[in-house]
Amino acid sequence: MTGLIAIDWGTSSFRAWRMDRGGEVTDSVTEGPGILAASAEPGGFEGALKRAIPDWLGQGLPIIASGMITSRNGWVETPYLPLPLDAEALAGALVTHESAVGRIYFACGAICDPDGPTPDVMRGEETEIIGQLAVDDESEGRFVLPGTHSKWAVIEGGLLIRFRTVMTGEMFALMRDQSILGRLIEPGEGSAAAFLRGVETGGQEGPLLARVFSARSLALQERLPANEIADYLSGLLIGDEVAGMATGPVTIIGRGDLAERYRIALNARGIAAKIAAPGMARQGLWKIAQQAGIV
Amino acid sequence: MTGLIAIDWGTSSFRAWRMDRGGEVTDSVTEGPGILAASAEPGGFEGALKRAIPDWLGQGLPIIASGMITSRNGWVETPYLPLPLDAEALAGALVTHESAVGRIYFACGAICDPDGPTPDVMRGEETEIIGQLAVDDESEGRFVLPGTHSKWAVIEGGLLIRFRTVMTGEMFALMRDQSILGRLIEPGEGSAAAFLRGVETGGQEGPLLARVFSARSLALQERLPANEIADYLSGLLIGDEVAGMATGPVTIIGRGDLAERYRIALNARGIAAKIAAPGMARQGLWKIAQQAGIV
Repeated sequence: MTGLIAIDWGTSSFRAWRMDRGGEVTDSVTEGPGILAASAEPGGFEGALKRAIPDWLGQGLPIIASGMITSRNGWVETPYLPLPLDAEALAGALVTHESAVGRIYFACGAICDPDGPTPDVMRGEETEIIGQLAVDDESEGRFVLPGTHSKWAVIEGGLLIRFRTVMTGEMFALMRDQSILGRLIEPGEGSAAAFLRGVETGGQEGPLLARVFSARSLALQERLPANEIADYLSGLLIGDEVAGMATGPVTIIGRGDLAERYRIALNARGIAAKIAAPGMARQGLWKIAQQAGIV
Repeated sequence: MTGLIAIDWGTSSFRAWRMDRGGEVTDSVTEGPGILAASAEPGGFEGALKRAIPDWLGQGLPIIASGMITSRNGWVETPYLPLPLDAEALAGALVTHESAVGRIYFACGAICDPDGPTPDVMRGEETEIIGQLAVDDESEGRFVLPGTHSKWAVIEGGLLIRFRTVMTGEMFALMRDQSILGRLIEPGEGSAAAFLRGVETGGQEGPLLARVFSARSLALQERLPANEIADYLSGLLIGDEVAGMATGPVTIIGRGDLAERYRIALNARGIAAKIAAPGMARQGLWKIAQQAGIV
């Protein structure tokens, strides 16, 4: 029997798939400890893996993993590959690790502009982009992967040539939960209109940290209801990001409400946007494994 | 005996001066409870005032106060005056309050662009700007008042015509203390060079929340020592603010290290900057009291 175990292992998430030799999923696990939790478990990452996918191990299946599991705080630290890169480059740079649960191939991250004033790094998102390119058989495109730190990537000629991290998700949580802007927030129904109003202000000129203050001044003026402040602020930050990053049609690799917010913000600025099908991490890991001759 | 008691009463600060009929300071108090602390004390604001300046009360001196003491969470809430405004407008709008410690005149705040998409407000800074104009006998100028929320103001023809709040100080503290950027920071000597390096990146194009990520990626690359991250981040945020707000020579109304950081950042961008003499809140309160005929 051949096939593959593919793992997308992030700071606070764990997703794994068992695939047969044709790449069909025969089983999957979507719950498991992220690397922060796993590193503190008995037996560390190895113990965590034994408990997360006990039935898949011992069958001689190769294991491939990407995400923050390959970072300094992960299991095996892998290098950041320079751009441009594609599936072949990632396949050629897999880091092999022999563990008690079998051989694991750890993917590398990517680094953009390593010698410039604002270098940038990613771990895991490059795999999702590779997956999306493989599924859609595309060789050009602009992608956004929304999240705590969203990633914007440009593909040309089948190569990842440039990307940028924007800390929108993390800053939104800090502003909502810890800043003076958050103190006026009251829980209640969300508001799509407040989100769009934020997107509009987010797309205007001037320093972001001046525009965000409008969440407070509008609330003080009672022009922004307390239960709409969070959506307004979300729109403002995503609007600023989209205005600064999107220059043409964008494919959103993400899920749920957050992906939908990016789609709405892009459309509000007249930019075409589509949300990719789910499962791009798995597709990317399969593609890299194929290129590496593991499957 | 005539004269004036002038109080600059902020969220977490209390400063008061006793002046004679010529405006000369005969005594001053720089320690006292800010409005958050004072509101929780026995007797509330009145009790706090009795304890802060016991010897000055009961002499029939008028009291004038500005700052967050006039906000919704303060002693007496005063309106925000529309722009343009000057000392005369502030004098004409003083809100008189009869208390057990005597008559208190509370200054108003100011509001910019109240019907626009990003209205802005201040309380207390307008008084400091009035003080600076009176001392230097100026009727034109651009001012910045650095702080948790810094204020940028434009004066033309002796009138405050426009201002903008930038949440730089608050965001710096959140990023340093609560964000993923802060986790790499180690204590140690500050670095003027790291601050200037941040100012340069702060002045570049692109979303602020993309550029700040360089604090992390540079540190991961070991191109930014752990003890220099905080200064780099401070420079980056102040650099972004200065690049977006400063269009000509600026007078900095502020003190100490923070005022000096703004001066350095402005100069690094080729913009002339001077730091105002201390005591502008007191000077402004005196000027408004004069205009109101209280002294």
